[in-house]
Amino acid sequence: MARHDGRSPDQLRPVTITRGWLPHAEGSVLVEFGATTVLCAASVQDSVPRWRRGSGLGWVTAEYAMLPRATNTRTDRESVRGKIGGRTHEISRLIGRSLRACVDYKALGENSIVLDCDVLRADGGTRTAAITGAYVALADAVRWMRKRKMCPGDPLVDSVAAVSVGIVGDTPLLDLCYTEDVAAETDMNVVMTGSGEFVEVQGTAEGVPFSRSTLDALLDLATAGCTRLTEHQREALSS
Amino acid sequence: MARHDGRSPDQLRPVTITRGWLPHAEGSVLVEFGATTVLCAASVQDSVPRWRRGSGLGWVTAEYAMLPRATNTRTDRESVRGKIGGRTHEISRLIGRSLRACVDYKALGENSIVLDCDVLRADGGTRTAAITGAYVALADAVRWMRKRKMCPGDPLVDSVAAVSVGIVGDTPLLDLCYTEDVAAETDMNVVMTGSGEFVEVQGTAEGVPFSRSTLDALLDLATAGCTRLTEHQREALSS
Amino acid sequence: MARHDGRSPDQLRPVTITRGWLPHAEGSVLVEFGATTVLCAASVQDSVPRWRRGSGLGWVTAEYAMLPRATNTRTDRESVRGKIGGRTHEISRLIGRSLRACVDYKALGENSIVLDCDVLRADGGTRTAAITGAYVALADAVRWMRKRKMCPGDPLVDSVAAVSVGIVGDTPLLDLCYTEDVAAETDMNVVMTGSGEFVEVQGTAEGVPFSRSTLDALLDLATAGCTRLTEHQREALSS
Amino acid sequence: MARHDGRSPDQLRPVTITRGWLPHAEGSVLVEFGATTVLCAASVQDSVPRWRRGSGLGWVTAEYAMLPRATNTRTDRESVRGKIGGRTHEISRLIGRSLRACVDYKALGENSIVLDCDVLRADGGTRTAAITGAYVALADAVRWMRKRKMCPGDPLVDSVAAVSVGIVGDTPLLDLCYTEDVAAETDMNVVMTGSGEFVEVQGTAEGVPFSRSTLDALLDLATAGCTRLTEHQREALSS
Amino acid sequence: MARHDGRSPDQLRPVTITRGWLPHAEGSVLVEFGATTVLCAASVQDSVPRWRRGSGLGWVTAEYAMLPRATNTRTDRESVRGKIGGRTHEISRLIGRSLRACVDYKALGENSIVLDCDVLRADGGTRTAAITGAYVALADAVRWMRKRKMCPGDPLVDSVAAVSVGIVGDTPLLDLCYTEDVAAETDMNVVMTGSGEFVEVQGTAEGVPFSRSTLDALLDLATAGCTRLTEHQREALSS
Amino acid sequence: MARHDGRSPDQLRPVTITRGWLPHAEGSVLVEFGATTVLCAASVQDSVPRWRRGSGLGWVTAEYAMLPRATNTRTDRESVRGKIGGRTHEISRLIGRSLRACVDYKALGENSIVLDCDVLRADGGTRTAAITGAYVALADAVRWMRKRKMCPGDPLVDSVAAVSVGIVGDTPLLDLCYTEDVAAETDMNVVMTGSGEFVEVQGTAEGVPFSRSTLDALLDLATAGCTRLTEHQREALSS
Repeated sequence: MARHDGRSPDQLRPVTITRGWLPHAEGSVLVEFGATTVLCAASVQDSVPRWRRGSGLGWVTAEYAMLPRATNTRTDRESVRGKIGGRTHEISRLIGRSLRACVDYKALGENSIVLDCDVLRADGGTRTAAITGAYVALADAVRWMRKRKMCPGDPLVDSVAAVSVGIVGDTPLLDLCYTEDVAAETDMNVVMTGSGEFVEVQGTAEGVPFSRSTLDALLDLATAGCTRLTEHQREALSS
Repeated sequence: MARHDGRSPDQLRPVTITRGWLPHAEGSVLVEFGATTVLCAASVQDSVPRWRRGSGLGWVTAEYAMLPRATNTRTDRESVRGKIGGRTHEISRLIGRSLRACVDYKALGENSIVLDCDVLRADGGTRTAAITGAYVALADAVRWMRKRKMCPGDPLVDSVAAVSVGIVGDTPLLDLCYTEDVAAETDMNVVMTGSGEFVEVQGTAEGVPFSRSTLDALLDLATAGCTRLTEHQREALSS
Repeated sequence: MARHDGRSPDQLRPVTITRGWLPHAEGSVLVEFGATTVLCAASVQDSVPRWRRGSGLGWVTAEYAMLPRATNTRTDRESVRGKIGGRTHEISRLIGRSLRACVDYKALGENSIVLDCDVLRADGGTRTAAITGAYVALADAVRWMRKRKMCPGDPLVDSVAAVSVGIVGDTPLLDLCYTEDVAAETDMNVVMTGSGEFVEVQGTAEGVPFSRSTLDALLDLATAGCTRLTEHQREALSS
Repeated sequence: MARHDGRSPDQLRPVTITRGWLPHAEGSVLVEFGATTVLCAASVQDSVPRWRRGSGLGWVTAEYAMLPRATNTRTDRESVRGKIGGRTHEISRLIGRSLRACVDYKALGENSIVLDCDVLRADGGTRTAAITGAYVALADAVRWMRKRKMCPGDPLVDSVAAVSVGIVGDTPLLDLCYTEDVAAETDMNVVMTGSGEFVEVQGTAEGVPFSRSTLDALLDLATAGCTRLTEHQREALSS
Repeated sequence: MARHDGRSPDQLRPVTITRGWLPHAEGSVLVEFGATTVLCAASVQDSVPRWRRGSGLGWVTAEYAMLPRATNTRTDRESVRGKIGGRTHEISRLIGRSLRACVDYKALGENSIVLDCDVLRADGGTRTAAITGAYVALADAVRWMRKRKMCPGDPLVDSVAAVSVGIVGDTPLLDLCYTEDVAAETDMNVVMTGSGEFVEVQGTAEGVPFSRSTLDALLDLATAGCTRLTEHQREALSS
Repeated sequence: MARHDGRSPDQLRPVTITRGWLPHAEGSVLVEFGATTVLCAASVQDSVPRWRRGSGLGWVTAEYAMLPRATNTRTDRESVRGKIGGRTHEISRLIGRSLRACVDYKALGENSIVLDCDVLRADGGTRTAAITGAYVALADAVRWMRKRKMCPGDPLVDSVAAVSVGIVGDTPLLDLCYTEDVAAETDMNVVMTGSGEFVEVQGTAEGVPFSRSTLDALLDLATAGCTRLTEHQREALSS
């Protein structure tokens, strides 16, 4: 099966990670997975939410949103509608949980880092691009903090990257673009650490329920994809 | 490892499925997984949402909520706060997607079924109990419709059940109660069809990222659990 | 005039008061007036609202809500609509005021009790069932507090019960079910103490304005009804 | 007992009813009960709410609100807080129900009248002043409609007036001002028709529950007060 | 060109400023520009917003709103809609900024004054009438504070008044009424100090963009108008 | 006086206008005024708001927003707070009005264009950059429509550009950056057409009220700035 952009089934789209995109943020990254473009900003606060005060532990949270015209047709703004939709909530929570998996709260001290992931252009895989880029923004924010000796230790115990996989017409594909995502019978988002373990596995039968062997094939594909994204992150952070 | 209620690691809590709990609903079930108690109501409407009108296809959706004192300490009402939280949104969407996996929209005709899942008592596994009970309420609502010849065909192509699994102190456990859920390092909710295929797999590393072999052990456990829940559903529907 | 369930005009529906329905609440009651079923939970907090701090006085408040399919046709959730309707507000306030009438704030100390009254099945008289049940839940919560020596004295100076009365086709009826409520020209909710005094009298001419003698007949009927409900409460609390 | 403004216990405050206060409204009244001042505007619409369309019947509804500095200390605006409080909801509903008691929906035809009651100065009895004034605004709006032959018949079958009564230090008092209202043990709002029948009776034990004889004394006082308010309305409408 | 009320192009409508309209407010004014009637209330608080605490500086803010039937046709309440519209926000901010221009925050001390401007009758120029009246209410509130020695100095360094000007059919007009405002091609609101300097200049091309010479003509007209309004304010404050 | 980036008082920051930044939008521009970066997207809809249907006329509207970390310190999202702030409302309305000044609604036909202006990086002048960029996005959307023969005529009768001016330490400055904006005593935003007429003039005395001669100096500066921005727009559109 030929993919419409000529990729092989197990090939990522071109990945670009541009650090320092925002002049004021403690960490910021413009991440591109093909046409999908997400601006990730890490903001450091020297305080924690109320329920965590006095614990000596830090906190990391995330907010995801899409610009109204990131998509094919214009979407109404959630600020104008006066409430956040279920999809936005769900993805914000996923990004937050994923990044917390690589953070040592004690080493972070009573500080918070908020990761704002705003989708400027959407072409499938916005949540996985957001997680992959947000990790780099987080790493930059942690460097910024450590330079100022804000943290008692090194809060980053690992790295985190994410990729989508899915079955389109019986073929397992890596890193689905929008048209592939729409056509997929099964769709899975996988978040992994740099050391190759799972943080989140979210598989959904969009059309037909899937078998264990399909699940296995998708996990293999995602594992390989996350490994390559981890390399992209390392390169970006070492440049 | 002994579980505090004496269960073996691969044992479900006692399951009760009481049909017809609400006098007016087209289908209704009080489902109990141990102390966890969810009231599932299926409401039939002879119309579909605007975006689906004229398509000849039906729709199934779900809303999940928790009574303020279902839990250990009182939770503020989302109606009073004026907005639905991210967790509620996420679970409502999960229940809806899960049930849609066993529905043939064409056979349903341009009708909608709303599944209200209200947690009366919470002791872990509320979303999986909700899915398991909601399927039975849905089946009753479909029978009600078919008796009135509202559907062009049989809209139920399979059944759907769900269970939680997790790793507590290195042991994979089936159907976590609240204290086990809090202690779990990894937590997974699995939704399967009666014919043994996956509808949703949602695994989350709460504390430590998990390996592929852990993931496999959890999937095995969940598969066995869903098989037993499917039997409970069949019994309930045949009584 | 025969009532459709065979009751005499001055007869209550069968009343059931089940204590301890929720495992975690300090007091909880499932109250049934015929098909009308309300779950009443009393939650104790060792603090008071800000405007009352430092006064040495306690506070009691209530929140009323209805499950979406408690009624004949499904009602949209107030949490989804993003605001509480006028009817919900009004009944919550009525329940709170009614229960406060039997409470000695000084003897309660600077503690709060919230009464959550959630209607699981609605067939008329949900607010009066809620008040009658909530009193028992409140009494259980007070016992719980006294066992822990949280209160400086005995906060309950009396008991409180409530019943609806109305004129249907010239006949004054006690404890209206839904179809009677809809048919009533005049509708009155009466809250009384166990010692036979009035806490709230809310009479409304739904169709035709009513005379003083009609008002007197309804108050007689309600007084007799509340006396019997007080006995039900005593029995429940002594079992 | 002397009242602080020298009134006898059964005496109303000075009542002023100024018609035509707003240049554009179909009916408008500035009503004063002593210092309490409410602006009542009746707005005619040649349509009815959706649930009533095609019925041939009209509708009357009301909205009550208070300016932020009508009271002793400033109250936050409900528009700024983003939601309407329980008290506002409750009073709006009471005013609407009260006025509907004197309206023949069929004679009104498929038209609506909205009564906006905005409290400019509050000194107790704002809801009863609002009802008393709103009736006159309604009557003017009906005249306006009948001049334009919008109604199939005469929609006003009676008049409606309201007054508050209460027990302050064992004495039943008519038309409580703010300081009396705060001091009252029992507080009752009574809405009556011009022909002397009851539309609404809302009695509340603020401090101590009240006996049947107290209730009777308050109803006598309220009946006399409403009779005098009805005369004020007639004078205003005939000038 | 004749104006429909016979005014010359550079003539204000009759201006009335009634002080002390509200019994409880520290300052209150009913201001009328022809039929436009705005109730302005100044409320003093002996505290400042959180971001200003400990600064030794005071704060002045404003809230503008319109009663539903101030206008030709009824407008829905913003409290019922659950949010404040853009126009309301914009005018509230304009009034606050304008009045702050004549306030010495240091002399005010850590106190706040809120100016509530509620339009009772609207016939064009509601925001300029609000500013002109609010200044007088502010001055009364400041007198009230100074009598109680709440302020370290005299917080009023100047006075502030406002007027609208516009081009209707090539003629520059002062103080537009509603029908003129609707017909205007260019519309400008000008806020000036009593000493003749500009605080705000807000010119908008409603239909056709305007030239520099038009702008100059409008500013001349507005300057003369504000001078006369300043005299009205002085008279009101000296009576 | 030297400006901190070395500009002369009457000099614009470097202006960049990048067209076609979004793959799906009918018109899109990334506009930069120095570090201030705004993404402007024009979305075409072949319908108009309800109040305009059947008129044969089109409509143009705008929505402005800022990403949370566009600024020095993180700003909470308006979608999370559940309401749009006054500043956002005000700027959205300003952008919409400004662009409508160059549109012939009849030539546009019953179509709408929404202009989304999202600030990615903020360093002063975000609203003026937004207007200047949005015009170019609008022009591209109009070309897109004309190619598809959606418009009865040419809807663009002129161009529109905007710039900020202000007095900092007695010197009138063009195109203020953030630090200059904060230091400005008087601040003015001026919107002009390509043919040199005024669309909006919004001058505000932040600290000290300003004289007529100051106003004149600022208008001269703004006129020159808008002329140069108009040239930038022409170049961008001809490339």
